[in-house]
Amino acid sequence: MNLDAAMAAAIEQSERVKGRTYPNPPVGAVILDRDGEIAGVGATAPTGGPHAEVLALRRAGQRAAGGTAVVTLEPCNHFGRTPPCVDALLDAGIAAVAYAVADPNPAAAGGAARLTAAGVQVTADVLAAEVSGGPLREWLHKQRTGKPHVTWKFAGSVDGRSAAADGSSQWITGEAARADVHRRRAAADAIIVGTGTVFADDPALTARLSDGSLADHQPLRVVVGMREISPDATVLNDDSHTMVIRTRDPHEVLQALADRTDVFLEGGPTLAGAFLRAGAVDRILAYVAPILLGGPVTVIDDVGVTNISQAHRWRFDGMQPVGPDVLLSLSPH
Amino acid sequence: MNLDAAMAAAIEQSERVKGRTYPNPPVGAVILDRDGEIAGVGATAPTGGPHAEVLALRRAGQRAAGGTAVVTLEPCNHFGRTPPCVDALLDAGIAAVAYAVADPNPAAAGGAARLTAAGVQVTADVLAAEVSGGPLREWLHKQRTGKPHVTWKFAGSVDGRSAAADGSSQWITGEAARADVHRRRAAADAIIVGTGTVFADDPALTARLSDGSLADHQPLRVVVGMREISPDATVLNDDSHTMVIRTRDPHEVLQALADRTDVFLEGGPTLAGAFLRAGAVDRILAYVAPILLGGPVTVIDDVGVTNISQAHRWRFDGMQPVGPDVLLSLSPH
Ligand SMILES: NC(=O)c1ccc[n+]([C@@H]2O[C@H](COP(=O)([O-])OP(=O)(O)OC[C@H]3O[C@@H](n4cnc5c(N)ncnc54)[C@H](OP(=O)(O)O)[C@@H]3O)[C@@H](O)[C@H]2O)c1
Ligand SMILES: NC(=O)c1ccc[n+]([C@@H]2O[C@H](COP(=O)([O-])OP(=O)(O)OC[C@H]3O[C@@H](n4cnc5c(N)ncnc54)[C@H](OP(=O)(O)O)[C@@H]3O)[C@@H](O)[C@H]2O)c1
Repeated sequence: MNLDAAMAAAIEQSERVKGRTYPNPPVGAVILDRDGEIAGVGATAPTGGPHAEVLALRRAGQRAAGGTAVVTLEPCNHFGRTPPCVDALLDAGIAAVAYAVADPNPAAAGGAARLTAAGVQVTADVLAAEVSGGPLREWLHKQRTGKPHVTWKFAGSVDGRSAAADGSSQWITGEAARADVHRRRAAADAIIVGTGTVFADDPALTARLSDGSLADHQPLRVVVGMREISPDATVLNDDSHTMVIRTRDPHEVLQALADRTDVFLEGGPTLAGAFLRAGAVDRILAYVAPILLGGPVTVIDDVGVTNISQAHRWRFDGMQPVGPDVLLSLSPH
Repeated sequence: MNLDAAMAAAIEQSERVKGRTYPNPPVGAVILDRDGEIAGVGATAPTGGPHAEVLALRRAGQRAAGGTAVVTLEPCNHFGRTPPCVDALLDAGIAAVAYAVADPNPAAAGGAARLTAAGVQVTADVLAAEVSGGPLREWLHKQRTGKPHVTWKFAGSVDGRSAAADGSSQWITGEAARADVHRRRAAADAIIVGTGTVFADDPALTARLSDGSLADHQPLRVVVGMREISPDATVLNDDSHTMVIRTRDPHEVLQALADRTDVFLEGGPTLAGAFLRAGAVDRILAYVAPILLGGPVTVIDDVGVTNISQAHRWRFDGMQPVGPDVLLSLSPH
């Protein structure tokens, strides 16, 4: 198996633990034996548990000696809750290490240099873009900015409406799109809505499986706004934790969520507009349905633009069919 | 060369003459010799000129004997302005004929049956969907309904706006999208706008090449509405013909264009809404830019929907990047 294929397998591993490794990054690792066969795989265990490399080495056992470790993040070189992964790799007799993304954390970095010094053959940047734009995107953003990564997700018609004129909106997008949202929620740390959405829809904001049952991991539910919501609001039920933040300032919201990494902004147009105007959105996921609605209820109202020269300019970095709908993904320009 | 590859070549031929064959359909033909090599290609000539098969046979010469004719439309069996193509194929000694779409015109049909009766091996439905949804889409629609095929084209932001709040809209989409529109205009029979667009933008509505010069073929420009437009309006210049239709009824517009096949509805929201409410749109082409504008100027206003149950439901049948933008294509559900 070549390095790209092994890294793809490591990425797959990391995606399975996304949302459950806080404060550690969701990392995936694959150990190839001397013959290039997969000897063990691993992904970051929940908080305080072993790192991906250590788990993969454990599974590889004796076959790791003389083999190659393929990891989505540069192996760490510091004592945190666990000993440095570099030590574990050297102890196991690994001959080569390939990683996708360098560790931006000064305390943990230096792993590649120490491995090289110990005679291990080190290859950097293997599928780097796939990892930095994929499973490690939110964690890298957090390391760089100190703030959680915010994804604004919306569902709309092809003419940019989020409901018909009378407010009815169930359903604009199809089942596949809604299942996709739940899958992403299950990997997120928090979901933010405004009080307006709670009053209008009384949503549960939980991550559910296709049979309607709760997913293993539930994101924190966050309600933003000055108005008091009813103690009977579904969003306050026992299915997950809920934080009510009495503010209208997006930066205050992000401050309150400073210990989170991957947050979803799920509605409605008022709060989303406030986040966009504040420059507090890092990705847009637009589920676009092949329908036309017209009328006054747009997916977003005021983003602070008067003239076209002030447009918020993004770039498409993904486009895929999801059932009958289309998912457009946008990143900052 | 297999039949699919030959049909793909025939499709390519037909696309080169689209918009210039009225009242004949834009057909493409490829003659394979006995060894399956391309011996000649052809596409419908302008009105009254030879059909695709005849041109391809002419180019193949002696090599047609014992060969295969691959045509996007069932060869015709009637005397129109030219003799039946079936006769030409038999005269040339063609041994096999493959076509994509049967001729829906009773006067011209029967070609396949006559060929079979004459001992020619006939294969129908080769890349049928590609042809009926592609180069022959508008012509087949016209045969079936007696009306021109209407494509509503719009350019919008990802939040469904066609201009910023102050009305500025140059440019929402990039150069590649605008070039794509001009390419499609050059293959269309007519472009329709409302008087509102003429008053607001004073557009030329011509098809231009990337160097700014006029394309060979210019569609008829059509202005719809009760208000009188200025005699100095650019749309009345000599670059193409222009029809002013004093009505607000989409059906009256289609009646006035009854001798056209492929018409584009290019704006603005008022006229497009009227066409959509009248069920007079057969395809939607949405050029979506990765920008956010917010504000009051939506790509469409009123499509006659109050409740989500009344939504106009379409289906995506294409999605492709065009420069930094995305082109979404929709067909009736
Ligand atoms: N299509 C979709 O993807 C989607 C997703 C979610 C919701 N929705 C729809 O959106 C509608 C609700 O819209 P909405 O705009 O009222 O919901 P919203 O944005 O969730 O909530 C609006 C409320 O957020 C608070 N808020 C927080 N920061 C603010 C700021 N900077 N400026 C102004 N207000 C701020 C205000 O509450 P206080 O007055 O309490 O301060 C405001 O009333 C519902 O019909 C729902 O179905 C659609
Ligand atoms: N983004 C895009 O793709 C795009 C494309 C084109 C235009 N635009 C923008 O659209 C804006 C113009 O919008 P608009 O809506 O005024 O343009 P429009 O739809 O082209 O023209 C509106 C006019 O059409 C006439 N009309 C014909 N049938 C009608 C009906 N059934 N109901 C009502 N009116 C009917 C009316 O004129 P009478 O009053 O004379 O009867 C009406 O005022 C401009 O700012 C332009 O830039 C955008």
